[in-house]
Amino acid sequence: MSELKNDRFLRALLRQPVDRTPVWMMRQAGRYLPEYRATRQQAGSFLDLCKNAELACEVTLQPLRRYPMDAAILFSDILTVPDALGLGLYFEEGEGPRFRKTVRSEADLAGLNKFKAEDDLAYVMSAVRTIRRELNGQVPLIGFSGSPWTLATYMVEGGSSKDFAHIKTMAYDQPELMHHLLSLLADAVTDYLTAQVRAGAQAVQIFDTWGGSLSAAGYKEFSLKYMQRIISRLAVESDGRKVPVIVFTKGGGQWLHTIAECGAQAVGIDWTTDIGVARDLVGDRVALQGNMDPSMLFASPQRIRTEVASILAAYGHGTGHIFNLGHGITPGVNPDHVTAFVDAVREFSPQYHQGC
Amino acid sequence: MSELKNDRFLRALLRQPVDRTPVWMMRQAGRYLPEYRATRQQAGSFLDLCKNAELACEVTLQPLRRYPMDAAILFSDILTVPDALGLGLYFEEGEGPRFRKTVRSEADLAGLNKFKAEDDLAYVMSAVRTIRRELNGQVPLIGFSGSPWTLATYMVEGGSSKDFAHIKTMAYDQPELMHHLLSLLADAVTDYLTAQVRAGAQAVQIFDTWGGSLSAAGYKEFSLKYMQRIISRLAVESDGRKVPVIVFTKGGGQWLHTIAECGAQAVGIDWTTDIGVARDLVGDRVALQGNMDPSMLFASPQRIRTEVASILAAYGHGTGHIFNLGHGITPGVNPDHVTAFVDAVREFSPQYHQGC
Repeated sequence: MSELKNDRFLRALLRQPVDRTPVWMMRQAGRYLPEYRATRQQAGSFLDLCKNAELACEVTLQPLRRYPMDAAILFSDILTVPDALGLGLYFEEGEGPRFRKTVRSEADLAGLNKFKAEDDLAYVMSAVRTIRRELNGQVPLIGFSGSPWTLATYMVEGGSSKDFAHIKTMAYDQPELMHHLLSLLADAVTDYLTAQVRAGAQAVQIFDTWGGSLSAAGYKEFSLKYMQRIISRLAVESDGRKVPVIVFTKGGGQWLHTIAECGAQAVGIDWTTDIGVARDLVGDRVALQGNMDPSMLFASPQRIRTEVASILAAYGHGTGHIFNLGHGITPGVNPDHVTAFVDAVREFSPQYHQGC
Repeated sequence: MSELKNDRFLRALLRQPVDRTPVWMMRQAGRYLPEYRATRQQAGSFLDLCKNAELACEVTLQPLRRYPMDAAILFSDILTVPDALGLGLYFEEGEGPRFRKTVRSEADLAGLNKFKAEDDLAYVMSAVRTIRRELNGQVPLIGFSGSPWTLATYMVEGGSSKDFAHIKTMAYDQPELMHHLLSLLADAVTDYLTAQVRAGAQAVQIFDTWGGSLSAAGYKEFSLKYMQRIISRLAVESDGRKVPVIVFTKGGGQWLHTIAECGAQAVGIDWTTDIGVARDLVGDRVALQGNMDPSMLFASPQRIRTEVASILAAYGHGTGHIFNLGHGITPGVNPDHVTAFVDAVREFSPQYHQGC
């Protein structure tokens, strides 16, 4: 593997000094980019794009050609694992992801495929290797997975949900079955992330998109506990470095104090949390990733610059901040506004790292 | 007006001693009740039902016939004000509310109707008077309005929204226009709530359904500030009592410390907040309303009872707690499960009020 030319992102995750605040965007390889839409059309469906290592690599690299991001993130779907477990993932236009089968009983659970990430998600590992080769050490590559709770919501509901009626009924009425499914998923995700690191991922992020739908007690019992279990078992290194883990629970701002103890090196925060307040809460236990409102990218470049400056000031001096949006970038954003965003982070952040 | 036979709800709002924790449910007059669905069908559309004082009264009283709730809430829609301002509210099956016109410029704003609640929403005042007469002092009647920010989201977007792209662009790029619209709405809501109290409402709730979509700073600037303004001007009394105000920002758990200072007598919290933590945060400044996960009503009656017990224990001893769900009840809930919920509050709560 070629030597890493820019390790600012990895250093900030480990709270080591950096010259400026690193920046990347969740969903940076996405529909707001015309070149992404072109490649997607060439690939066929969204899943075809995920399964084609060359094209998945192409869209992963596209944002890096436009913007000086400090990290690349594997292009894939969060539902690859449930798909490999045999649920039959498909997408209906404008409807979000759906599964042909659901998991609502011990029998459904027993009917899931045995899972070995290296074999059953070989196409993901192939994409990781291809991207690492093409990145050629430019920036680190982030691997990722959905959290067990988040994967389970889709598996039990059969797709997206507004009120999570099925999975919550399971969690409340059949906690043993719920924990059985979450344990199985924690094992699968551990194996999946380990395989991604072996294939070349240099950091990993766990997307807990739906952890915020739970009560405070439910979050600890059904979501955080299993992310903790994954992290404690992820004893993997990449190129001799410990691989940092980022945990991102959308809507988890109230629980930061607890999330900071889960063993992750960094915690992602959405835009509803004041990053200065968050830093006071987590202290020096973890780095923080975030947290501009993705809708701010609809505003003028000048307004975006002001917002970046204000988030940097709220975090304050020193390392441990990875600039990002508070959620994935929205389709419909003008790509030039992303330029303003990234440039502002590069321009305004060095002052917060001087003498640190 | 006949004397109020059960003032437990009003007393708890004012943090005065009560014999047990009062209970009601947001959206208690709703689709989970077969008798509601029958009346709704009889009325025609949802808006027809809101505009028919006798039928609006009927559905308001329906849950009280089944369950010993400690309050009734006016049956109406949160978008009556924008409709009266001339935007043309309508509902498409399964699509949520829509407006024929939107407000996206000073010209749109200037084109809004002048608004006087007593005249322009006379049908609401008529419903309030009818309900008060029929309630005959059984329990207090809650009036309500959407918050200025929440009303504005629908007015600017033209309906429901996922990412609030239009209103956030306005807030970020044209803050003067945004504040102009919010000021106008704050005036209208003040007038609307005052009229409801004059017609007989004995407490009012401001539903800030979409305040939680804002950043911490944006919430203070665009939502909380205007609710504060409304509350400071609501110098109204009902039957010689000061009318308590409840502010409910869904997703506002991180900002409770600030919300508690807005002048409201009570703050509603959704189910993601630990009510014990919330009580520590707000101290004796406000009462708290909430906060069982509405999806808990899909679970077994026994599980519901356990949850009620655990929320009561988390709040602890003394007054200042109004039991409710953390959001509106979901269609599809078995009405018998609501019986279990209400009975559990009545059965388990007296011990927390002994000697207080």
